[in-house]
Amino acid sequence: MEKLAIGIDIGGTNISLGFVTSDGKVLIKESLPIKKFKTAESFVDFASEKIEKLVDELDSEYEIKGIGIGAPNGNFYNGTIEFAPNLEWNGVIPLASMFQNKTGYKSFLTNDANAATIGEMVYGNAKGLKNFIMVTLGTGVGSGFVANGELILGNDGFAGELGHTIFDPNGRQCKCGRCGCVETYASATGIVRTAKEFLNNSNESSILRDYSEDSITSKLIFEAAKQNDKLALKIFDFTANVLGFSLANAVAITSPEAIFLFGGLAHAGDLIFKPTKKYMEEYLLIIFKNKVELKASSLPENNAAILGAAALVWDN
Amino acid sequence: MEKLAIGIDIGGTNISLGFVTSDGKVLIKESLPIKKFKTAESFVDFASEKIEKLVDELDSEYEIKGIGIGAPNGNFYNGTIEFAPNLEWNGVIPLASMFQNKTGYKSFLTNDANAATIGEMVYGNAKGLKNFIMVTLGTGVGSGFVANGELILGNDGFAGELGHTIFDPNGRQCKCGRCGCVETYASATGIVRTAKEFLNNSNESSILRDYSEDSITSKLIFEAAKQNDKLALKIFDFTANVLGFSLANAVAITSPEAIFLFGGLAHAGDLIFKPTKKYMEEYLLIIFKNKVELKASSLPENNAAILGAAALVWDN
Repeated sequence: MEKLAIGIDIGGTNISLGFVTSDGKVLIKESLPIKKFKTAESFVDFASEKIEKLVDELDSEYEIKGIGIGAPNGNFYNGTIEFAPNLEWNGVIPLASMFQNKTGYKSFLTNDANAATIGEMVYGNAKGLKNFIMVTLGTGVGSGFVANGELILGNDGFAGELGHTIFDPNGRQCKCGRCGCVETYASATGIVRTAKEFLNNSNESSILRDYSEDSITSKLIFEAAKQNDKLALKIFDFTANVLGFSLANAVAITSPEAIFLFGGLAHAGDLIFKPTKKYMEEYLLIIFKNKVELKASSLPENNAAILGAAALVWDN
Repeated sequence: MEKLAIGIDIGGTNISLGFVTSDGKVLIKESLPIKKFKTAESFVDFASEKIEKLVDELDSEYEIKGIGIGAPNGNFYNGTIEFAPNLEWNGVIPLASMFQNKTGYKSFLTNDANAATIGEMVYGNAKGLKNFIMVTLGTGVGSGFVANGELILGNDGFAGELGHTIFDPNGRQCKCGRCGCVETYASATGIVRTAKEFLNNSNESSILRDYSEDSITSKLIFEAAKQNDKLALKIFDFTANVLGFSLANAVAITSPEAIFLFGGLAHAGDLIFKPTKKYMEEYLLIIFKNKVELKASSLPENNAAILGAAALVWDN
């Protein structure tokens, strides 16, 4: 009898649900706009019925081992989503126990970055690694730290906020209310801020000047850099400096074997990896130099969130 | 039969050796200048004989469970001291296996800060805590991070270098070759550097001006601050800012329940704790605010190193 985990990814726009084998094959996958569900209760009702239906349709050779949920502001210890600013569901939502009560399956919940980290450990390049860091470079910067083979959750379940370590206390205003967080530089939105600053503070020619300020995206900067646009390359270099700095400081704390980059910015390949690695090595304490691999995540982008969520089931 | 651990602390000046009960009583303690031993071999020979003699003198109601060693540049995984700049013993020294072979007792070795961390966990205020940080504020800044109830050693055994996270990449020259390490500000030597800078960069009156620049010590600064010397208080405030900043960034990564400060600077009490706590809270991400206790270590200074080393035996 083959064992399956159900992975549910709660995003700001869409919710995805998939049935995943222990070796990471996604057998069934469904996506729905989260707007359909005014409350978490209505979503749990709908999804539980859906799961029941899908399970009925499965061959009897499969056995469901549990449900894993990745969600913004997810707290593993409590199985709750806590005050997620990007969701319409307010307050503290005990989503794991709601699913467990409704479906009878053991249910686990954690935040998106932690789910991706466990996904990398269970299905990806971090298989077998006892000490590594996963960094998700999306709209924000998320991260998960694994030490001694276990995800660091911390006292309250909220550990792993590399994006909200402070790079420069006099730096950019962050949505979190403080200034200079790594996220304000090394995310997709951060690199756009850098581009706007660089465009406004110099007269250097650039392909990016063909676009209105409001239409500049991280993708456009990437395209310009690929065409060897000097200003775009400087923007990547500046971003890599911040990221390399914060990674070097993180290495001094947990001394990982490898760091995996995931998400939007990581797709820029050598444009982001090469300078980040260069700066990280420059900032590293000598005992850590040339020891830490900087690699792309091996989770397939389209299924990463579901794989990460499902991996919670195998990891627990 | 009561169980005992033997704790050995290798310092730059002295070596201490003690027999410690499982509840942290130091029954026997001896100290020797390290200069007596030109080589690690000669020390192991001497200490093993000493241990044998002391064991023979013990009541038969005691049983030795093992040897724990705290040493600069100690690597727990390998049981080695690796290229310690402050020791005359050169290269890589497999001290744990040397002791184990000579005495027959299971032997463990780690660096001083990690030993202090395990000491705090086994004998001190961190008893029962699963997530905490220990920071030793001495000549340098050492640290140990505990997550999920286990010390983070990292891939190579060298994790926990908070003192060598970079506060300001354009900051002070550090002995490690890089610039702006936390250690160059928040250690006993760091606070003296700050005092000299502050004295040279202003004409502000201060008790400290009664001393020649070369005679200023962290203790003098402490004494001046206790007498409400404004410049000395500014020096503490500046130091606390750097320490509070680096602690806030560390909290974002491991989300500890408590942080313990140990060593020279920690003895300044409120003069260092109050402003450090204030700055740490200012720099903390909102989800971590007012959650993390900042406390003095409860290890008695005179026996802390031996207790920490001995604690390795109970922890393994």
